[in-house]
Formats: sequence, C-alpha cells, structure tokens
Amino acid sequence: KKANQDHCRWPDRELVRVQDLTPEKADQLIWLRARVHTSRAKGKQCFLVLRQQQFNVQALVAVGDRASKQMVKFAANITKESIVDVEATVRKVEQKIESCSQQDVELHVERIFVISQAEPRLPLQLEDAVRPDGEGEEEGRATVNQDTRLDNRVIDLRTTTSQAVFRLQSGVCQLFRDTLTKKGFVEIQTPKIISAASEGGANVFTVSYFKTSAFLAQSPQLYKQMCICADFDKVFCVGPVFRAEDSNTHRHLTEFVGLDIEMAFNYHYHEVIDSITDTMVQIFKGLRDNFQTEIQTVNKQFPSEPFKFLEPTLRLEYTEAVAMLREAGVEMGDEDDLSTPNEKLLGRLVKEKYDTDFYVLDKYPLAVRPFYTMPDPSNPKYSNSYDMFMRGEEILSGAQRVHDAQLLTERAIHHQIDLEKIKAYIDSFRYGAPPHGGGGIGLERVCMLYLGLHNVRQTSMFPRDPKRLTP
Amino acid sequence: KKANQDHCRWPDRELVRVQDLTPEKADQLIWLRARVHTSRAKGKQCFLVLRQQQFNVQALVAVGDRASKQMVKFAANITKESIVDVEATVRKVEQKIESCSQQDVELHVERIFVISQAEPRLPLQLEDAVRPDGEGEEEGRATVNQDTRLDNRVIDLRTTTSQAVFRLQSGVCQLFRDTLTKKGFVEIQTPKIISAASEGGANVFTVSYFKTSAFLAQSPQLYKQMCICADFDKVFCVGPVFRAEDSNTHRHLTEFVGLDIEMAFNYHYHEVIDSITDTMVQIFKGLRDNFQTEIQTVNKQFPSEPFKFLEPTLRLEYTEAVAMLREAGVEMGDEDDLSTPNEKLLGRLVKEKYDTDFYVLDKYPLAVRPFYTMPDPSNPKYSNSYDMFMRGEEILSGAQRVHDAQLLTERAIHHQIDLEKIKAYIDSFRYGAPPHGGGGIGLERVCMLYLGLHNVRQTSMFPRDPKRLTP
Repeated sequence: KKANQDHCRWPDRELVRVQDLTPEKADQLIWLRARVHTSRAKGKQCFLVLRQQQFNVQALVAVGDRASKQMVKFAANITKESIVDVEATVRKVEQKIESCSQQDVELHVERIFVISQAEPRLPLQLEDAVRPDGEGEEEGRATVNQDTRLDNRVIDLRTTTSQAVFRLQSGVCQLFRDTLTKKGFVEIQTPKIISAASEGGANVFTVSYFKTSAFLAQSPQLYKQMCICADFDKVFCVGPVFRAEDSNTHRHLTEFVGLDIEMAFNYHYHEVIDSITDTMVQIFKGLRDNFQTEIQTVNKQFPSEPFKFLEPTLRLEYTEAVAMLREAGVEMGDEDDLSTPNEKLLGRLVKEKYDTDFYVLDKYPLAVRPFYTMPDPSNPKYSNSYDMFMRGEEILSGAQRVHDAQLLTERAIHHQIDLEKIKAYIDSFRYGAPPHGGGGIGLERVCMLYLGLHNVRQTSMFPRDPKRLTP
Repeated sequence: KKANQDHCRWPDRELVRVQDLTPEKADQLIWLRARVHTSRAKGKQCFLVLRQQQFNVQALVAVGDRASKQMVKFAANITKESIVDVEATVRKVEQKIESCSQQDVELHVERIFVISQAEPRLPLQLEDAVRPDGEGEEEGRATVNQDTRLDNRVIDLRTTTSQAVFRLQSGVCQLFRDTLTKKGFVEIQTPKIISAASEGGANVFTVSYFKTSAFLAQSPQLYKQMCICADFDKVFCVGPVFRAEDSNTHRHLTEFVGLDIEMAFNYHYHEVIDSITDTMVQIFKGLRDNFQTEIQTVNKQFPSEPFKFLEPTLRLEYTEAVAMLREAGVEMGDEDDLSTPNEKLLGRLVKEKYDTDFYVLDKYPLAVRPFYTMPDPSNPKYSNSYDMFMRGEEILSGAQRVHDAQLLTERAIHHQIDLEKIKAYIDSFRYGAPPHGGGGIGLERVCMLYLGLHNVRQTSMFPRDPKRLTP
C-alpha cells in the first residue's frame, strides 16, 4: 500500500493500454495496470482476463522459467475486480480468443502485483449486469434489477453498457455547447438557491438559509431572461434543475441536468425554434458520427432502432396534431393538453407519416401554458410556444416569453398569480427588453430516447427520485 | 407591441450590427436594432448614441427631407435604454467621434420605431457604473456602490465592464473543458441533493425532501471519486457548490461554480498536480491570446498588472513557504495552517522571488487537511496535498485521496468522525480502487484574480452570500 502513496522509488515505467495490445506488440515485455475481470486456475496454470473499461485481454500465469508454483497460487487467489500491475510478454495466439476484445494476443505474465484488492463477495456480477433481458434464462442465468444496480452504482458503472452510456452523455453536453458557442451564444452560470419560487410555488424544494428559508430553482428561466435583458443576446447554460414532484415514473427525476437556451430574436419566434432544432440536429449528427461504438455497445444489451431525424426538422402545429389524433380515434377538444399516452401515439403516427423520431409541436393552446408565454397575436386561443419530442416523448418545452411588463402583469392576473411574489421578475422587463424566447432540454431524457432506453435512471449516474437519495 | 409577437408581415430585413458600421458601408441605407444609450435634442436636431453591448454609434435625426419636426420630437422623447429599430443612411464623418466605438461614421436616421420602451427613471446610470473609482470626484460625479449594482443587476450587466467580465468567464469554462477533453477526461454530472453531509456536517444547507430531509452538496468530491472507482479514469465536472458558511468577506459565496477534476494516476500524485497546473496554464494562455479586448475593457475601470505565470508552474513545499514567511518576520509553527494574511504575504514574497502570480504549495501538514487526505509516506506529519494560488489567494484545494477502505477508516476514527455517516463513502473503495487525486477550482475566484478585481461578487452574475438571495 505504501507504494501507492509515494512512488518516488519506482521506475518511470510506461504502462501499456489494453486496447493497444495488438500483434504488432508480439514478443515485447510490457507493463500493464488493469482489473482482474475473471480468474480461472487449472493445474499449474492460471488464466486471468484483465480489463480496462470496455477492453480486455487474456493473461496466463504458468509454472515455468519465470513463474513459480507460489506465484500461480497467488494469482489464482486475487479477487475479481482487484486492480493489478503485471509485467508480461505479449504473445500472438493461434486461435482467436473470442471472449476478449483483444482476440489476437495473450499475455504471459512474469510478475504480478496487487495495487488494490477487492473484497471477495461482489454485490453484483458484471456479466449479469450486461446480459440482455431474457437471454440465458433457461440456464438460470440472472440479470440485475435496477435497485441493485443503483445501490451498487460504483460496480454497475464499470460495465461496458454504462461506460458507453455516460461517455455518450458527456458527448451530448460537448456537442450542445460547441454548437451554440459557434452560433455566438455565451455560457452563463445561474444561481440554484433562489428567494422566491418562480413558477408559482408548486413542486419546489425548500432550503434552510441561515435565519430564513429559500428554494431550489425549478429552471434557470428567470436568470436566462435577465441575461437577455442585460444584452447578452444569446445565452445557454448547463446545470441541475430541481422538481419536488412526487412522480414515480420512468421519465421523472427530482434532480436532472437542464440544457437551457434563451435568445433575443429579430422578427419571429421561429428564429428561436430554428436555432434549437439545428442544435439538436448537430447533436444527433455528432453522436451518429463520433459515438458509433458506444451506440452499438448499448444496443447489444438494449436493442433499438437507429434514431431518425429530418433536415430541416419537421414542425407541426398543434391543430394538425389534434387532427391526426382524432383520425386515429382519440377524442379530445381543440384546447385540451396532450396526455402522455397521446404524446406517444402521436409520436408513432408522426413516425409512420414522416419517418422521423424528432419533431417540433408548435402553437400550443394558450390555456395549457405558463403565464409568461406569449399569446399568438393572430389567434388568442393559441400561443407562440412549442414542445420538442424524441421517439414520442417530450424532451424540451419552450416559448416566446412576454417581454413587456404591462402584458406580463395582465397575464399573471389572469392566472391569479400573486403579483407581489413575481415583482422582481416583472421588473426585469421595465428598462427595455428585446423580444426573446428559448427552452429547456432534459439531458437524461435526450440520452435515454436517443439510445432507445426505457428508464431515465439508466442515463443518470446517480439518479434522484422521491424514493432515492443515495448513493 | 403586437409586431413583436408575430412578425409574419414584416420583410425579411437584414439587421446590421453596430460593430460592422465602418466607412465601407458609407452611403448605404441600413436597418439596425439597438438601445438608446444617450439622447440629446438641440433645436431641429436630435443626437442619439445607439448601443449594442460594448459598441456604439452616433445617430442624427434632423428635420429635413426624410424627417419631420414631429419625428425629431418623437426621437428626443425616447427614454434611455429603450430598444429601437432605425432605418438610416451611413455617413462618413470629417472629425472622429471620440465618444463612440464607431468613430468614422454616423447614421442619418430616416425612420425610427420603439421596440421596447424603458421606464424614464433608471435606478442607475451606465456611465456612472463604469467610472473608475475616484475619477470625476471633484466634478461631483457618482460611482455606483455594489449593492445598488447587484440590486439592479439587469442594468449593471449591460456595462462594457460587466459584458467583458462574463464573456471572459464563459471563456474560462470553455478552456477548462476543452483542455481536459483533449487530455482524455470525461465530463460527469453529479447530484447536488445528497442524503448525508460528506464532510462531517458543518456548513451544509438542509433541504426538505418529501417526508425526510437532505443536504446540498458542498463539493462533488465523493461522486468524482466514485467515478474513478467505476473506471472512468479521468473525470471533470462544472457545477454549483454550496457552503452554508456565515462568512461575509470579499472572497466567500454561499453558492459558487466549482471546476472539479479527479484522476487515477500511475505512480505519483504529482501526475495529478501536473495535469491541473497544465490545465490552468492553458486557461491563462487562452485568456491572454483570445480575450485581450475583454481584459483591457475591465482594466480601464479596474486597473491591474497583467497576470504572470511560469512554465512549468512553480511548485513550493510547505516547509519552504514557512521558511520564507519566517524570514519575513512571521512567527508560525511547522504544522500551523496558513492564515489569509500570511497567504497574501507569501504571494508577494513568491512574486518578488520568482516573478509569478500562480504557484502550487505542496505537502501541507496532515493535521490541517481533511480525513480523506493521503498521508506523506516518508513523513507522517505531512500529506500528499496541495493548494494553488493566484495573486496570493487560494483558488484550488486538492490532494491524493486515501483509496484503501481500511486506511480511510483509521483516518476517520483519528478525526473522530462518525463511521456510520460515511459508510457509503468508505464502501466505495472496497471493490478495487486505483490511486487517485484531484481538486476543486472556484470559477469566480479564478476570474476575479486573473483580472485583478477585488470582490468575488464582481465575477458572479447573481451572487449568493449570507445576506443576499436576490435577484
């Protein structure tokens, strides 16, 4: 252990990466650090599979010139998931090793050190955690349920599937920011502790704040809008969003990551829709082009159709959607909101008709949107607001915002909102505010739906819901 | 107003940007949207200064062929900070207009529309808000105090200084992430609502969480470390960090943005220090090379020396620092922590001796560091931990972490920490954990100190401290 604290005495060894173990390295003596993925002793030999993230290689410790009987025994006793340093010769193999990512070579181990020893009983087995549902059932092979996974997230995150999911998620954030930065957007940081519940007070977490109390922001919207009023013109932010909603569904979390956009526009709020849809398209293309390995890795465990999108993005009006649903037998009024099952049905109808998994639904009924939504000037029953959908589920809600203090006051009164509580919000628009709009995207939902997964907890590293606060 | 809601009837006009108004555009008829920065009526003429962020241009409305007396009167009555659309001819001027960023042209206005009217009384004047301290005092000119600025942040953020500060801050985040992504780090998202106070329970905000209570994370450290134990190898995150500390100083906030790094290393924790210092150097270089305009804009109001750094970064050991301080007359024991005044003094001594504003102080006394800090294996009074300083103030605290469950338990007992409360933390290391280390950087401090500012509230858009929760 002391060796891990200060290795001044150690040589400046190069550690080879498992993915670089190819026949070109044959007969070289190398050092490697990896986890013991599996271990199997067999007479005077011990076969190990050594793993680094999604890559693994077979290693052989055999009694002979370089290894003693004691060493083979020592190797055989190393617990699974322990981290080891090995010195070994790379050897080409006659027959491909089908069970490893490095199929053409194996390692002949000369020295082996345990860097960190895992406890002998693992709370879950990695091979069970990556098994597709139903596979191997007749042999009595287990899969791992979600609570066991989440309770032991440190181990569950080591699977090839988890590694792929969260590397892709990192990619979504990067693509989002890079696209917007190229479009001239400025990144902002907005406070999460706020003094008043911006959206009326429902579903908000309360925080003790010294001698008073405060709230956790349900969205950065007020602050994004203040930045627009402060001449930043186009802004984005990436950060946690909190919803004290007692919803125990496959797609609700009490804390999630919001990818938020807000921008001033010149003449029409469709300029905002175009900016957002183009950003989404750049994300989809970036994932398709740069994360194919990750997508395929996830698909092995959770098969799904490739994600389809159009350019330009399909934009439907709410009235068109209602007509499509009615044609499919749904009974609903013009100004009724979409239920979750109807959203999903609509997604299927849109997919059939237009062959896309991504589209915008524009011009929602004014009555079902928040008070700060700009009414449609040509039809006061509707509004300049929109949702965006992936595989039939909502990933973004957005709108042109009312930027005039007087109209905003009128709308708040209409919604019976206490004006005193939103005074600071309304005052932000008193000193000149450009027309503007935006929206908030849920990162975990985008990842879930892009990959065709079925639970948002699969794309949140450490999910929070009404029943889960750990780890 | 209606025109801002749905401009379908509007022509698809190109709006020219103020910064593009140069003599090449002379005699062109253009459209422009901007704020009325100042307005001065003079007989049959009205001179406006129109502003977009840090750029502005003079515009003339004069009675004649294109403009009526009524129009001049209308223009003269537009309140400052209102947003207007103007149609105007660009004209070269004989004499440079010193007061504007566009000195070689002015606009001869033919039409003017108010897009958004500002209230006539502004809570603060932009020209006061950018005035350097002391300037114009004899003429009785005002500057704006910090609370007035923060109370009216939407207007204060419109100043050239604020625009520059927060565009530079956006740059720091981008440089941080781009540098680490190039080094193979993965971005992670960590939860902010946590079930147990990771660092013992002091200075933590409590949240009501359905029928129980929870806490706001004081740092993402546990989650960064779990990701290392989960084979992500090198991770970073950017997000809010919460400290319920009743500190009312120039450098403490109750919510700030943490730029966090954690990585496994091979042989020595100095690999971690090298990664972090190189990241900081890439940030400093990126700011120097790409944000010179912003730096100079801030310097106009808040003069400071250019920020100096060395390559490679200077690394001093704690014992050397104590010796330097003693030589300068400070009395302190070998294992005493550094007081804030002594940190500042040390910064000045280091600057004199080594000519750098950035350095690392390594090998802190074990006694002054948290329980999870790895002891120095060659001298148990010290530890494998470090702070980093800019202009004599701490911007990062970091260490090699204890990655062995048994040693961690011993250290926690030594610090009299309730083992039950940190069970999940300790358990993370039971299934194989590589040696690792990291640190957390305060974004607002980095921006403040790089720019030579004197209050962290200047580099937080909407600062939170024990006395401020708004806007």
